[in-house]
Amino acid sequence: MYVKQTTARSDSLAQPDLFSSESHFGAIVPNKQPAELLPGEPIHHESVHGREGEGHESTEHGGIKVIKVDFEEVETPFIIALWIFCASLAKIGFHMAPKLSHIFPESCLLILVGLVIGLLLNYTQSVHVSPLTPKTFFHFMLPPIILDAGYFMPNRLFFNNLGTILLFAVIGTLWNTFSIGLSLYGLGFTGIFGGDVAEHLTLLPTLLFSALISAVDPVAVLAVFEEIHVNEVLYIVVFGESLLNDAVTVVLYHMFEDYATMGENQIDTMEIVKGIASFPVVALGGTAIGIIWGFLTGFVTRFTNHVRVIEPIFIFVMAYLSYLCAETFHMSGILAVTFCGITMKNYVQANISQKSQCTVKYAMKMLSSSAETIIFMFLGVSTIHDEHNANVWFIIFTILFCTVYRIIGTIVLSALANKFRLHKLGRVDQFVMSYGGLRGAVAFALVLLIKEEAVNKNNELRKMFITTTIAVIYFTVFLQGITIKPLVCWLKVKRAEKRKPTMNERIHERLMDHTMVVLESIVGQTGHYKLRDK
Amino acid sequence: MYVKQTTARSDSLAQPDLFSSESHFGAIVPNKQPAELLPGEPIHHESVHGREGEGHESTEHGGIKVIKVDFEEVETPFIIALWIFCASLAKIGFHMAPKLSHIFPESCLLILVGLVIGLLLNYTQSVHVSPLTPKTFFHFMLPPIILDAGYFMPNRLFFNNLGTILLFAVIGTLWNTFSIGLSLYGLGFTGIFGGDVAEHLTLLPTLLFSALISAVDPVAVLAVFEEIHVNEVLYIVVFGESLLNDAVTVVLYHMFEDYATMGENQIDTMEIVKGIASFPVVALGGTAIGIIWGFLTGFVTRFTNHVRVIEPIFIFVMAYLSYLCAETFHMSGILAVTFCGITMKNYVQANISQKSQCTVKYAMKMLSSSAETIIFMFLGVSTIHDEHNANVWFIIFTILFCTVYRIIGTIVLSALANKFRLHKLGRVDQFVMSYGGLRGAVAFALVLLIKEEAVNKNNELRKMFITTTIAVIYFTVFLQGITIKPLVCWLKVKRAEKRKPTMNERIHERLMDHTMVVLESIVGQTGHYKLRDK
Repeated sequence: MYVKQTTARSDSLAQPDLFSSESHFGAIVPNKQPAELLPGEPIHHESVHGREGEGHESTEHGGIKVIKVDFEEVETPFIIALWIFCASLAKIGFHMAPKLSHIFPESCLLILVGLVIGLLLNYTQSVHVSPLTPKTFFHFMLPPIILDAGYFMPNRLFFNNLGTILLFAVIGTLWNTFSIGLSLYGLGFTGIFGGDVAEHLTLLPTLLFSALISAVDPVAVLAVFEEIHVNEVLYIVVFGESLLNDAVTVVLYHMFEDYATMGENQIDTMEIVKGIASFPVVALGGTAIGIIWGFLTGFVTRFTNHVRVIEPIFIFVMAYLSYLCAETFHMSGILAVTFCGITMKNYVQANISQKSQCTVKYAMKMLSSSAETIIFMFLGVSTIHDEHNANVWFIIFTILFCTVYRIIGTIVLSALANKFRLHKLGRVDQFVMSYGGLRGAVAFALVLLIKEEAVNKNNELRKMFITTTIAVIYFTVFLQGITIKPLVCWLKVKRAEKRKPTMNERIHERLMDHTMVVLESIVGQTGHYKLRDK
Repeated sequence: MYVKQTTARSDSLAQPDLFSSESHFGAIVPNKQPAELLPGEPIHHESVHGREGEGHESTEHGGIKVIKVDFEEVETPFIIALWIFCASLAKIGFHMAPKLSHIFPESCLLILVGLVIGLLLNYTQSVHVSPLTPKTFFHFMLPPIILDAGYFMPNRLFFNNLGTILLFAVIGTLWNTFSIGLSLYGLGFTGIFGGDVAEHLTLLPTLLFSALISAVDPVAVLAVFEEIHVNEVLYIVVFGESLLNDAVTVVLYHMFEDYATMGENQIDTMEIVKGIASFPVVALGGTAIGIIWGFLTGFVTRFTNHVRVIEPIFIFVMAYLSYLCAETFHMSGILAVTFCGITMKNYVQANISQKSQCTVKYAMKMLSSSAETIIFMFLGVSTIHDEHNANVWFIIFTILFCTVYRIIGTIVLSALANKFRLHKLGRVDQFVMSYGGLRGAVAFALVLLIKEEAVNKNNELRKMFITTTIAVIYFTVFLQGITIKPLVCWLKVKRAEKRKPTMNERIHERLMDHTMVVLESIVGQTGHYKLRDK
């Protein structure tokens, strides 16, 4: 599909940054092959642009060449552009086969295409490009998707259900992590996973694994739920959970990785206190950074009325900066971008021109859609390259525990939430909530980042975690993703209403809101009305 | 403004690709300083994401830290985002001071801001970021600007004036290169440039320099001409010339660099023939690649009616791929993107949805506007870091020759063009055309790419070329850019009409066009009507 040159490269220049493979990830090491050059193709070490680098060549070949091929210097942008192009073509392809896309969600089809491409690349041994590195994923693909989610978050719905969402995101994730982790750890003693693994499957690596496998993935949830159109409350609860649980996952993952690296005997009370203190810091810190950048964006866009064309730039760049700021301080970047989007929206939409609004809206959708496309396709491609260690019982029990504990957690927490909710979560809702707990690329990126020190320096254990994570992702995305649509129909889950609220409804709703704030103030009670009201 | 860490880095990973400085450019070598770390800030060598890299740290510090700062891993995207942000803020700033922006064109102000930032960075010695590398410029900043130009090219006007544009772009550029080059070379014998330089200022390096200094810059021309609103014919002639002369400049630059590297005595007839053969290959090859990708885009967008959201992606990605394809084969990338835009426009606009059209339009304007902003700002910043060698006489005579030969060329070629033109180019038009021959970032990027082998291994000569190029750019952008607006007013140059043509006018125009094609067919003559008519 594209010409490749895996020649020896000079330092930083020729090595593509975005697609560079880091050897300590182990999982995605490209099989470097001897160069297969185009006939007569020159090899440059210092070439930077087409207008340069002929010096060597002409002295070698003794003259000017009328036509030259020099792929290496444009390699990185070329490959990125080509991936985006292929992914978009694949997406068109699905919609040309309506039967196919009726049964399979798009995410499944993209993974399948990725698998095929991965097999082809593997077969031709041209695995020069090792696509989904965790760095690429976290720095370039996740932010646009989350920004899109935050910016177009239905504020009203979100803050109405914030309590329930937080309950599931915090308590639910903690419950899942510890129940899955402890169960797997306990099961290890029975020897069912084989002697070699059982030996290294100590408590902390198991909890590290369960922390990353417990997180419901916003990208997967968005991809599946946007196609099945369940009612808004159900959607916001599942999707909100997948966004807000990021902080919990980050802290748990960090904590267990640190503990596992330190060794169990080094952990004292102080360490545990510090670990627990990280929760509010990471969560509130990320939220605060997001809100600050959101307000800043609102402020800056007040002054753009003479230079309308750069309004969208501010929105994208400042949201991205909020994400990077949060990541710099090891806060939750997802929370930062989500709240940056939520905060800026109202101000920005009032400040910027109609045309900029249109640009922002569709450019955001375009970016997030292409990022999502690439993530699922890369997930398929990466599957092929990974060094696998498939422990069938470990995979089966992980999937089993993931499913069972999610159902238990949902039932218990729903019962708790229903005590405070006006709109109760029924049996069917609870089922969809458990069933919609999809795992995805976040878990995959996190499992690739596990260092050997954290898994008792046992690379086999690391590989087993990687394989199991992929299996869980495939199970949830394929089996649950494909069956959720028929199930939702069969269970007669309340669907989303398509119509827009009339002007009259909106005015009354607004009036009721304000009245409620007043009433709450009089009664001395602060509920979610106050939070949402801006 | 941002924390920096210039610690020893592990190979390709930590070194930011986009901003990497290549030592053989000489001109933009950052003054690497010892690391100034934040207090207690950990140094990572392998850290990739916030979720990773705590291993070392915790073993060093003996535990979890609740708040961590880890800038290095998000450095590259952070710095890029910050540059864009600052550039956009600067742009807002100018419009807050209407008096300032009335006198100075925006490009001048941006260069000034860049100069100030460059001085600050130089003063604080935190020159970790060396922004405008030729690679960054050619791969990431130039394509969006040219695509914007090509996509919104007024086809009718462009093809109506194609003859004149080509005359100026090909013959004019050749004339400028050889007249400037030979004059400077001749002047070298008088010894006015000093003995040391005169010794190394042989014919081929001088011609190499004159080739890059002769090219009228599309970015600078766009920036200035969009503010002065001269009539369309004048605009399209100058701007079209700046686009189409790219092929000539690429060939001349390559050719003289190769010749200079080979040495004068090695050049035989064959080499010269091959050099001349490069002209049609580079020009027509680039155009052909652009047209092919343009048609492909038109074809692909026929099938996107179910997935409207990815329509803009195709347009951007495929245009970018046309640029990269052309660059791979050392064709003219600028011509490829220009013609890709021209070709795709008609088909794409009929195929894609109204919303996608809006997105494409404003996203393109946004991208090109920010690329332009950054180019001018970086031009200012880069000026400070360069190793300079200011030869006053060389600079003065280069500017003089640039101006004089451009005027002579314009007068002669206009006289030639007027023989075939219905709408004659008057004296005033000719003056604006000569005066609007601005030099800019393309010349700057090309001069940085000159290798030592091509300048008789004399680095002082290279530095002198760099300094002179910057001086010429500043002269044209500042002096000509600032004075062109009052001059245009004073000379009463016909301004652009703002109104849209009425429906009636458009129908009649279209009818006339088709009639003319028929008439031309009958007479057996093929004029520009046939070319344009699609």
